[in-house]
Amino acid sequence: MTTSWLDLPADHPFGLATLPYGVFSTAADPRRRVGVRVGDHVLDAAAAAEQAGMESGVCWDRPSLNDFLSRGHHAWAAARAWLVEVLSDPMYRDAVEPHLLPVADVTMHLPFEVADYVDFYASEHHASNVGRIFRPDSEPLTPNWKHLPIGYHGRAGTVVVSGTDIVRPCGQRKAPSDPAPTFGPSRRLDIETELGFVVGGATPLGQPVPIDEAVEHLFGVVLLNDWSARDIQAWEYVPLGPFLGKSFGTSISAWVVPMAALEAAHVPLPGQDPQPLDYLRGDEGSVFGLDIHCEVRVNGTAVSRPEYADMYWSPTQMLAHLSVNGASLRDGDLFGSGTISGADRQTRGCLLELTWSGQEPVTLEDGTTRAFLEDGDTVTITGWAPGPDGARIGLGEVTGTIRPAFE
Amino acid sequence: MTTSWLDLPADHPFGLATLPYGVFSTAADPRRRVGVRVGDHVLDAAAAAEQAGMESGVCWDRPSLNDFLSRGHHAWAAARAWLVEVLSDPMYRDAVEPHLLPVADVTMHLPFEVADYVDFYASEHHASNVGRIFRPDSEPLTPNWKHLPIGYHGRAGTVVVSGTDIVRPCGQRKAPSDPAPTFGPSRRLDIETELGFVVGGATPLGQPVPIDEAVEHLFGVVLLNDWSARDIQAWEYVPLGPFLGKSFGTSISAWVVPMAALEAAHVPLPGQDPQPLDYLRGDEGSVFGLDIHCEVRVNGTAVSRPEYADMYWSPTQMLAHLSVNGASLRDGDLFGSGTISGADRQTRGCLLELTWSGQEPVTLEDGTTRAFLEDGDTVTITGWAPGPDGARIGLGEVTGTIRPAFE
Repeated sequence: MTTSWLDLPADHPFGLATLPYGVFSTAADPRRRVGVRVGDHVLDAAAAAEQAGMESGVCWDRPSLNDFLSRGHHAWAAARAWLVEVLSDPMYRDAVEPHLLPVADVTMHLPFEVADYVDFYASEHHASNVGRIFRPDSEPLTPNWKHLPIGYHGRAGTVVVSGTDIVRPCGQRKAPSDPAPTFGPSRRLDIETELGFVVGGATPLGQPVPIDEAVEHLFGVVLLNDWSARDIQAWEYVPLGPFLGKSFGTSISAWVVPMAALEAAHVPLPGQDPQPLDYLRGDEGSVFGLDIHCEVRVNGTAVSRPEYADMYWSPTQMLAHLSVNGASLRDGDLFGSGTISGADRQTRGCLLELTWSGQEPVTLEDGTTRAFLEDGDTVTITGWAPGPDGARIGLGEVTGTIRPAFE
Repeated sequence: MTTSWLDLPADHPFGLATLPYGVFSTAADPRRRVGVRVGDHVLDAAAAAEQAGMESGVCWDRPSLNDFLSRGHHAWAAARAWLVEVLSDPMYRDAVEPHLLPVADVTMHLPFEVADYVDFYASEHHASNVGRIFRPDSEPLTPNWKHLPIGYHGRAGTVVVSGTDIVRPCGQRKAPSDPAPTFGPSRRLDIETELGFVVGGATPLGQPVPIDEAVEHLFGVVLLNDWSARDIQAWEYVPLGPFLGKSFGTSISAWVVPMAALEAAHVPLPGQDPQPLDYLRGDEGSVFGLDIHCEVRVNGTAVSRPEYADMYWSPTQMLAHLSVNGASLRDGDLFGSGTISGADRQTRGCLLELTWSGQEPVTLEDGTTRAFLEDGDTVTITGWAPGPDGARIGLGEVTGTIRPAFE
């Protein structure tokens, strides 16, 4: 295992096996630029690259990761190798150390400009539970569910960085028993615990990405909270899908963890039956699950511990599917996995499922209960994965606090 | 009526009452920059502004309209007044005329970077017909349809300019009688005749746009063809809406016609019953239809003449709805009206309706018939509206040719 002259504890979630990318600024230097998290510091990547003589580091002197994303997977691998080298070989210490800033001194920003945002629905347990709740008189899974990764486009312009407050949305709500819809603040505001995949290496229109090449377009992952107004969603979503019930805000973690950091976390999928069509089947290694562990806290109380390994569809299957009609990829495309839910109640990734549509509220440590979120509630999702040689890969956190509706 | 020193015929669709914006380049000067169509010429707007001493014209020296869109409705009005002045007052002729290029000598590009793309479903006739075809055992309109303008997010990255070829998409298709889905090129490739609304004047997250201010964020309109693969769409769209059946390409006209050019085309809506909720009701003038006439040609044969005045929901209602949950607007947001269809067969805006799901093919002038589009087919949609004092406002055209599937 490579060690750093930074003298990090072996089990630090942001050791040399993680090295996530983000965009930061400081009070002294308010320019937004790319940073790399290492231990409890943020490396000013462009400044370090310049001093250490790495020319391609210029793509880090930008207010977003998009330029770096456009360089493609060979450049991402070379950059990661360079970072490991300069952070482990003492020869680089003098050049690099001045560009390490305490994480407490930086402000983090949205790490990339989101091009298109797609949200999938890749957990069989989540889709089944939602089907039972929203469509009690039908089969829980629709007939297409095991043939293709169901997904839809969300609003890219309302993806925000962790720490951004979320204003409770207003909209039309109508319970089946109501005679007509009413307008007002959502009464069923929910979270959705997801993993987000960040795409780079743009492709031309009309040319699908084969599944065996899909991983080359996956730059990294973020934790994602797809805030959902269940009452607005339930009334609007037939026939064209969720719209205002989702588009008011989607939060992502500030740190993008490279896919390269998750190689030790690849696991087999739980199993797919029926076997998917050819374009969703790849060579060995092309289709995989991820051994990522999440925790969801509401005002500090852990209410759920979703396991990403329970997901039915592979991220590479999602990417191959979304481009199989010739849709082009852009640097900065983001797709969410859909809510991460397992078979057990304590692994359900949203309150809709956890409280079974509000019928079985969860109790917080302060003794209060929640069917759905209240104004002032803070939701924090954390995550980690196993790394090489017993290392721990930290996924950081995505957090947000609910502000009262705009009235 | 203002006349131009250009000596345009009074009924020219691109007279001084139209003045649409686009982005062009020439062989001699390949920089993409903003142009204004006038008669059979394109005005190099930034160059003319510089020579005529208009400082704010710098936002036209850009490869997209987005900077101009960000300036807001007062700036749009001032720019339009300036254009009318310099194109009508002979005093400006010497400064402006050198920057008029024959339209045949320019190449047109995508006029703006599409931020988020939303597609609505605002024609009662279209929604009813599609309901009858896709869900023959249910009521044609879903219970929510007359309470809110149904919409969903589409793929912004695959919006292309008129003239771009469209590759027939592949995907999963399954007729109800098929035992399992199969993969291959769409067999039911369709058009959707729509109007697209181009948004400017960004708004902050969490703050809805009141309906009486909505028109201030509508910069202009384009003709829009929302190409649709009906077989892919029918199999995938339950429960989260259309995805790959739409995301392979959406074509828009190269010229964005300002909303200011359409003021003489405002007409009352056909009528809304039940009365919508308060946030969808505005002061007099805030809610309107548009007297826009379209023609759809397949390989030169006119197959339909949709009338925009038949649409149920106002563009301002669509904008107020899409932001009522606090979703922010960005410069370059685009929303489509949904297919424009009327009560009569000859006003239906897509082949799904025109041929009643392929059962009643249309006959082209060459004697061939079409249930859906074939490889090599060229679809052209044109449009016009009445202008002030008998002028005619040209909406130009959106055209595209189907190329064979990628295999």
